[in-house]
Amino acid sequence: MKKIEHIGIAVKNLEKSNQLFASIFGKSHYKLEEVLTEGVKTSFFKSGPNKVELLMATNPESPIAKFIEKKGEGIHHIAFAVDDIKAEIKRLKKEGFTVLNDVPKKGADNKLVAFLHPKTTNGVLIELCQEIE
Amino acid sequence: MKKIEHIGIAVKNLEKSNQLFASIFGKSHYKLEEVLTEGVKTSFFKSGPNKVELLMATNPESPIAKFIEKKGEGIHHIAFAVDDIKAEIKRLKKEGFTVLNDVPKKGADNKLVAFLHPKTTNGVLIELCQEIE
Repeated sequence: MKKIEHIGIAVKNLEKSNQLFASIFGKSHYKLEEVLTEGVKTSFFKSGPNKVELLMATNPESPIAKFIEKKGEGIHHIAFAVDDIKAEIKRLKKEGFTVLNDVPKKGADNKLVAFLHPKTTNGVLIELCQEIE
Repeated sequence: MKKIEHIGIAVKNLEKSNQLFASIFGKSHYKLEEVLTEGVKTSFFKSGPNKVELLMATNPESPIAKFIEKKGEGIHHIAFAVDDIKAEIKRLKKEGFTVLNDVPKKGADNKLVAFLHPKTTNGVLIELCQEIE
């Protein structure tokens, strides 16, 4: 775990939330990206070595739609940068954590990603992410 | 907002959660601290330039006890490091955000802190923090 790569925040209206977080950071988002396989539109803000990712569902089956339905808008996940995601998945499974992706999948922002189930991590959805070279 | 200073995670049992997060990070917490005014015991883990703070309530009136009662264990807040917390409070109030502390207060980890009310920030409790010189 090299650093907090980003915090993911579930929002209902990406345009409105982009304005809101632009006011907080004093600068606009630097990237918009749609991840079709996850049913989300995302935007990214930089804060020094870290990022904040806003996520809006594009269909009612999206994990983000379900999250908002259950818990409302708010922090959805925390992502840690790792050098070798396959080795980390193996290590964390051995430690007893439930890894939702045995094989890392392609996520937003040119990353390979895998998630730890929150039931084994104090209710925190943890993403591991490795930059694709 | 220079970086994500830390993520705060509400937990029920600090000892158990310290073990859990030591397994995740592959290393132990480096600090324990009790903040009497907030009714919390905290522990800190490092992840590169960032930290993860675990928070356990020490009495039922603690904001952490109330959070867990309402939402269960999980991510409680996100803290951004700032150079001049008073200037940031002034700027964000002018932008229309509800700042819970007009005057920054002493928090854990040798910081002056102030919080933005989640109702104005997409359900995200945001902490501003400035290192005390």
